[in-house]
Amino acid sequence: MLVNQPRAQERLKQEGLAAIVATSGENVVYSSGFWAMSQWIRRGPQAYAVYPAEGHGEPCIIASTGTLDLIADQEPWVRDVRRYGFFAVEVDPGARLEPRDERLKRLQEAADDTDPVQALVRALRDRGLDGARVGLDETGIIPAYLDKLREAMPGTTFVRAAETFRHIRAVKTPEEVERLRGSAHVAETSIAAALAVAREGATERDLAYAFHSTTLREGGIPVLGVIGTGPRSALSSAQPSDRVLQRGDVIRFDVGGRYRHYRADIARIGCLGEPADKVRRYHHAIRAGLLRAYEVMKPGVRCADVFDAVMETVRREGLAHYTRNHVGHGIGLDGYDAPNLTPGSTEVLEEGMVLSVETPYYELGFAGLQVEDMVHVTKTGLASLMSTSSELRVV
Amino acid sequence: MLVNQPRAQERLKQEGLAAIVATSGENVVYSSGFWAMSQWIRRGPQAYAVYPAEGHGEPCIIASTGTLDLIADQEPWVRDVRRYGFFAVEVDPGARLEPRDERLKRLQEAADDTDPVQALVRALRDRGLDGARVGLDETGIIPAYLDKLREAMPGTTFVRAAETFRHIRAVKTPEEVERLRGSAHVAETSIAAALAVAREGATERDLAYAFHSTTLREGGIPVLGVIGTGPRSALSSAQPSDRVLQRGDVIRFDVGGRYRHYRADIARIGCLGEPADKVRRYHHAIRAGLLRAYEVMKPGVRCADVFDAVMETVRREGLAHYTRNHVGHGIGLDGYDAPNLTPGSTEVLEEGMVLSVETPYYELGFAGLQVEDMVHVTKTGLASLMSTSSELRVV
Repeated sequence: MLVNQPRAQERLKQEGLAAIVATSGENVVYSSGFWAMSQWIRRGPQAYAVYPAEGHGEPCIIASTGTLDLIADQEPWVRDVRRYGFFAVEVDPGARLEPRDERLKRLQEAADDTDPVQALVRALRDRGLDGARVGLDETGIIPAYLDKLREAMPGTTFVRAAETFRHIRAVKTPEEVERLRGSAHVAETSIAAALAVAREGATERDLAYAFHSTTLREGGIPVLGVIGTGPRSALSSAQPSDRVLQRGDVIRFDVGGRYRHYRADIARIGCLGEPADKVRRYHHAIRAGLLRAYEVMKPGVRCADVFDAVMETVRREGLAHYTRNHVGHGIGLDGYDAPNLTPGSTEVLEEGMVLSVETPYYELGFAGLQVEDMVHVTKTGLASLMSTSSELRVV
Repeated sequence: MLVNQPRAQERLKQEGLAAIVATSGENVVYSSGFWAMSQWIRRGPQAYAVYPAEGHGEPCIIASTGTLDLIADQEPWVRDVRRYGFFAVEVDPGARLEPRDERLKRLQEAADDTDPVQALVRALRDRGLDGARVGLDETGIIPAYLDKLREAMPGTTFVRAAETFRHIRAVKTPEEVERLRGSAHVAETSIAAALAVAREGATERDLAYAFHSTTLREGGIPVLGVIGTGPRSALSSAQPSDRVLQRGDVIRFDVGGRYRHYRADIARIGCLGEPADKVRRYHHAIRAGLLRAYEVMKPGVRCADVFDAVMETVRREGLAHYTRNHVGHGIGLDGYDAPNLTPGSTEVLEEGMVLSVETPYYELGFAGLQVEDMVHVTKTGLASLMSTSSELRVV
């Protein structure tokens, strides 16, 4: 199970919520296990999950009839499924159906709740939540549907809950940590594949193809593919171009796909041939910052203090003018989960958090340098999810 | 340029809007040319484009400082760029900057508007739009930011504009048609690559890897990859599994990536070895429906009439019990642009529309069969964007 149930229940109690309703792809997967494809590849298709506080009934999935096949195939742990809308699927009367198809047939036989709002209203009423205080993830529901929902349940108080989900998701369950470890591994394997094709005359696109196709082969889905070489490495969001690699080029990777729905976000630096002295010196400084994070991060430490320690180290170790808005962020179903390692953060590290810790440096006319590890906050300190070193790799 | 300016201006006049503001990735790319990576790979990062009615000034892009490098690299046609937020990029004092880096340096030197709402308020005020009626795309802006915007400009009337953008985007410009043709081509090439690895013992995942890696090599990005074999082909959203192909299996592709930001959505059926008679008969029927669409679709024809003609044909040609919620939809930056080929649609075909026309049939215990072409409504009829036939392919 992905959802951190004790943390979710505690938060619902603190906020006085009888339930929270997930409306974005990330929050629906998180709270129910249901991955509704259309919700991920488009903006608009509606799938919801109702996650009640203790004593308010079982969780529930609300899905369009056309996505029920995914529920039959995925078998999420939430068993109450409400469907809406017309979608034609026939059944061969002469066939012995596989269990998956039997499940789908049953799901389709349930009453059609017509539209997602009707289905949600019914699910909430069935749980006695008419008149309750309900947290509603505002990031996935279409505003016009939210209007209809308020109209249909005028006595119910709907409060925005995106921050509530964000808070709950910040501390990962063991299943989530394993997926994040897998996602990090896919990204590292993909960087190795890209560096294997790096040579004079290769283009950034060649590296990107090697990177993303390896992600696919390892079971991931391409998402983030910032690969910049030479002066283009200084572009923070560098998109792979036809630029041809030259000897001495810095190759910056800020990359990561999705693996079993979980994101990776890691960074490494390669160099085609012997790097310039300035590259070595600056890389040493930013890497020292990252390594410092391993020393200071543990449960109870303030995120703002991690920021200060890392920045101080990078400046002392060779980049005196280093400035930065953050040195890392949580990672999970989203590329930027809580917490944020920013100077102004009031967040505190907790056991079970997973973060991408990073110290990027961008200098136009020179290069971009960056190291970024995915790390797991354990009871006593920090465990790396990486299996490769953040050292400069000369190829 | 992507945006259909005459259609946009006409629609703004009709709706009495002084400007429309894009807030989703699709609408920002459409109305400004700016692809803000973070907006596409996450939910939350804010980039906007202001597109004014004639007489209300020039269009404008609002971007976080950390995404300015993408503007410098992409050179969108909209020249007024407002930035917000702190993001550190240094400049090597000893280097001669490339033009792209010079552009980025200049973009960074502009005043920091602090946050996206402040930047948008300033952009609207500078165009004299305080107190005007402004269409705001409600699909990308964070609700809390919308609250702030209304608070900052209480005299301005903001109306939801997602439907306005959807209407404008329905009729494609020549540049858009070329991209869609390219996207269709990438998808067809990828299907051919997947069929080339289809043999007894191969898995659905093997086909998916061949499909998506070919999409990457052809310059696309994987998005939709429904590949189901045997009984799994009857799952409408079938996700590639470890199922091993067997002789006689139907292989259903409902697929398409993104190419230069434009989606493909096409479908083809393969069969491993000689197909069952029922497969041939049913495939003939659904394909007859698709071919019928080529005869009836042209400017001025009602979408509901296309639905009726296609359904009637499929039923007459061998699938008497065929039922369906739609037989196609527009395609462009989104996988479901306007119009919809539904029975209840009041939309009428116009020259320049591009649609995915489809006649899927799903039968549990048997198979899923589907043909789907991307087509372009011309002055006199319908032009296919496909270069492969929708015939059943025996491999």
